[in-house]
Amino acid sequence: MAGTDDNITQQQSAAKPQKQPKQPKQPKPQQSGGGKKKEVKKETGLGLTNKKAENFGEWYSEVVVNGEMIEYYDISGCYILRPWSMAIWEIMQAFFDPEIKKMKIKNCYFPLFVSNTVLEKEKDHIEGFAPEVAWVTKSGESDLEIPIAIRPTSETVMYPYYSKWIRGHRDLPLKLNQWCNVVRWEFSNPTPFIRSREFLWQEGHTAFATKEEADTEVLEILELYRRIYEEYLAVPVVKGKKSELEKFAGGLYTTSVEAFIPNTGRGIQGATSHCLGQNFAKMFEINYENEKGEKAMVWQNSWAYSTRTIGVMVMVHGDDKGLVLPPKVASVQVIVIPVPYKDADTQGIFDACTATVNMLLEAGIRAESDARDNYSPGWKYSQWEMKGVPLRIEIGPKDLANKQVRAVRRDSGAKIDIGNDDLVVEIKKLLDNIQQNLFDVAKHKRDACIQIIHTWDEFVAALNEKKMILAPWCDEEEVEKDVKARTKGETGAAKTLCSPFDQPELPEGTVCFASGKPAKKWSYWGKSY
Amino acid sequence: MAGTDDNITQQQSAAKPQKQPKQPKQPKPQQSGGGKKKEVKKETGLGLTNKKAENFGEWYSEVVVNGEMIEYYDISGCYILRPWSMAIWEIMQAFFDPEIKKMKIKNCYFPLFVSNTVLEKEKDHIEGFAPEVAWVTKSGESDLEIPIAIRPTSETVMYPYYSKWIRGHRDLPLKLNQWCNVVRWEFSNPTPFIRSREFLWQEGHTAFATKEEADTEVLEILELYRRIYEEYLAVPVVKGKKSELEKFAGGLYTTSVEAFIPNTGRGIQGATSHCLGQNFAKMFEINYENEKGEKAMVWQNSWAYSTRTIGVMVMVHGDDKGLVLPPKVASVQVIVIPVPYKDADTQGIFDACTATVNMLLEAGIRAESDARDNYSPGWKYSQWEMKGVPLRIEIGPKDLANKQVRAVRRDSGAKIDIGNDDLVVEIKKLLDNIQQNLFDVAKHKRDACIQIIHTWDEFVAALNEKKMILAPWCDEEEVEKDVKARTKGETGAAKTLCSPFDQPELPEGTVCFASGKPAKKWSYWGKSY
Repeated sequence: MAGTDDNITQQQSAAKPQKQPKQPKQPKPQQSGGGKKKEVKKETGLGLTNKKAENFGEWYSEVVVNGEMIEYYDISGCYILRPWSMAIWEIMQAFFDPEIKKMKIKNCYFPLFVSNTVLEKEKDHIEGFAPEVAWVTKSGESDLEIPIAIRPTSETVMYPYYSKWIRGHRDLPLKLNQWCNVVRWEFSNPTPFIRSREFLWQEGHTAFATKEEADTEVLEILELYRRIYEEYLAVPVVKGKKSELEKFAGGLYTTSVEAFIPNTGRGIQGATSHCLGQNFAKMFEINYENEKGEKAMVWQNSWAYSTRTIGVMVMVHGDDKGLVLPPKVASVQVIVIPVPYKDADTQGIFDACTATVNMLLEAGIRAESDARDNYSPGWKYSQWEMKGVPLRIEIGPKDLANKQVRAVRRDSGAKIDIGNDDLVVEIKKLLDNIQQNLFDVAKHKRDACIQIIHTWDEFVAALNEKKMILAPWCDEEEVEKDVKARTKGETGAAKTLCSPFDQPELPEGTVCFASGKPAKKWSYWGKSY
Repeated sequence: MAGTDDNITQQQSAAKPQKQPKQPKQPKPQQSGGGKKKEVKKETGLGLTNKKAENFGEWYSEVVVNGEMIEYYDISGCYILRPWSMAIWEIMQAFFDPEIKKMKIKNCYFPLFVSNTVLEKEKDHIEGFAPEVAWVTKSGESDLEIPIAIRPTSETVMYPYYSKWIRGHRDLPLKLNQWCNVVRWEFSNPTPFIRSREFLWQEGHTAFATKEEADTEVLEILELYRRIYEEYLAVPVVKGKKSELEKFAGGLYTTSVEAFIPNTGRGIQGATSHCLGQNFAKMFEINYENEKGEKAMVWQNSWAYSTRTIGVMVMVHGDDKGLVLPPKVASVQVIVIPVPYKDADTQGIFDACTATVNMLLEAGIRAESDARDNYSPGWKYSQWEMKGVPLRIEIGPKDLANKQVRAVRRDSGAKIDIGNDDLVVEIKKLLDNIQQNLFDVAKHKRDACIQIIHTWDEFVAALNEKKMILAPWCDEEEVEKDVKARTKGETGAAKTLCSPFDQPELPEGTVCFASGKPAKKWSYWGKSY
């Protein structure tokens, strides 16, 4: 490894060298193997050097590394997803994939590569992606005659074949999805999960005979995305429609779930469900013969969520002790830690830990015990807090005597003694409670950031206070451009996040905060990731 | 689509233009919408133009396309996996992934890209892959200062981090796996599933304190690969060890499951489980402190199976009517087809089809009905035979009257009438029987190709007869090279497939068929994919 980090960061031509977070402190193993003399120190020393409230960016980089979700990779903007984060991805997939299969969407796999000719077919679309496209130009020592692009998304990869497969109305709807990696060679501020050059996602691509069917599916998928955020990741989101300026390049309209990071005062697009209209169908000639024997054009959607979900969850729930994982996505929901004292029945305590884990596993709870003999209980507490395990169970001599365990919540730190007889029921209740509490707390914080404004002065003030701003807007593209220009600063300009589906009342005569023209709708505004 | 196929094939500089199979015949929809005048023709016209026994290569290309597994893509050597094949991949994954999780192997995801410095660290290894590596040299309009490779496999991507993560004996074993795509820009004869420039696979990478643990895991994984082939794909394989010449570049030894394609007389490596020894550990400095406080080096394995599995299955079971899918991997195990006659109770027949499907679904059997009204039953039979569905159920007026269904096996064509009361039990039996029969027939055919030889003349004769040759061998690398040189022909040279674990007796004094030196073992030889 020696030297590779530096080498490659320098090799990235146009890339800003990426901030490498400090190496996580290696756990300091205690002396072991000394038999009787085994000494258990109450060392901790696992803490984060940055605080969430003071140094958010550094805190985030540190917590994803120390929590063992991410390892920084020697190519800037690429990250290693370690098992601790991969398991979360898999749990979300285990929810989403069966849900879309119920909707008769089928999985497939299209190639990673796309030829220039095809990529450039839809002009608006390629303009949106062109600067970020990675190009393969060589194989082995030979130059390819024509460079081949790596997919930044697969509309242009797939739709020539939709054109081939769709002939008659009976071929519709065509509903495909793929789980894959995509590459967007961005240079601005790479951040693990949130903005990386390669990421994992699912991308759904569907074609319908009617706009109504397409519209319906857009919202069905968006609801699944809301459930991923709110039910799994315990992150509150706003469902809404993107502005013309912020919609998907080449599409008709874009809906999204928008999350908010109170610490930075930034909105973040959580996942998007696009209605592409007939624009791609026109470019790729996706026509069919309808029931009347006439030539017609399909209506298309595309929709995706990515590993960004995990980053949003970390940003929302993490604290100065480390990650905080919602029970529904934690690969370890309960960590059981033996707390032996000098003269205690050590074997009895270890046996009780094993029995507890087995009881929980049988009940479908993801539990593990940490029986390592070279770390103190205190050190273990810190490590599992860093990794964000929702519930810790401690078993010491007193617990053994009282036929109970001590449960400690990661979210609140609350300690609860539970009798062995009630264990499974109580632990289940606690996990449900933690899941709900994480959502409630996050929603409370998010809601406290929402500020309704009516004037430009109020807008600027709220922006400086890192608010998620709800403002009456005339819905004109030029006005959004103007707001962007007027708020341009070091930390990025303000823009629309979305126009929420859940619209407050808009009294007659309300004017746009930015243009003074009659307001057409309420929109969320703010800086964003 | 117009023109893109031709464009891109020509664009591939060094690539031989790939043979594009003939377009599958589009089903010819019947006149519909004519209400009463709906006429049901007994047209078929879905057949394959090539025969498996006469024109194997063309038959294969045609059957994967007409069976809707593959669509040829406009970049040579890349293929679209359609839902019909993707479902098979997912079913195998649903078996393999939980099995390795039981072995405490965890999933992760490492980047697609690898820097040149790291890629070249293990010389033998990179020599094996260098000519096939695809290089990214540009992003958008800018040149990267240093080209970045796309992983052909991930040893060199991962092991710098193994070096970082592994410090003490308690960090071992480290057992990771990833499901991903890899790219090998090969120019020789691309074939869907079998040899493609991008393919899907899992790759496991594990590190142990002792060689014994590594050796044990190599065989545990190989047994899972055998089960995928034999229990899921119904394809008989030989477990064995690769020769020094054929082992994984940079590894210590390679084990594999080897399948055989009787029609071409070629062996095909089904999946490999490598013991890497300590070679990569040395290059990447993967050291740890052992129990005694001494510095030690890990022992490593890597193992993979890919979408090639699907191609082997197609080659082994397919016939002149199309694909033949083993029930365990078929996404549709039973297709139910209504067979209404002119004056029959059409509604009753359709209702019986729906009821049958529901009954089967409830019993966990993957069933579907084909109620399309614009195709004749005969045309539907042909289409589902092309797609390889294991069992067809026909329901006509007579069946309705007799409270029965007619089941038709894809493998044997046998027709069986089953009373409604016994339906679930009998269908389950039939599916098990088909699964077993496919394996038995394939094994019988494969075994009939195995020929034991002792002399060079026998070897050459057997090779010409497309046999899978079992021969006594001196196990010397130079001799294998010599055999390769002496058998070099248009269709490739002969090489070792593997030395089977199940060794016949080797009587004292047996000599090598090629060198005349004392034989050390029996090995399988042949041409291969």
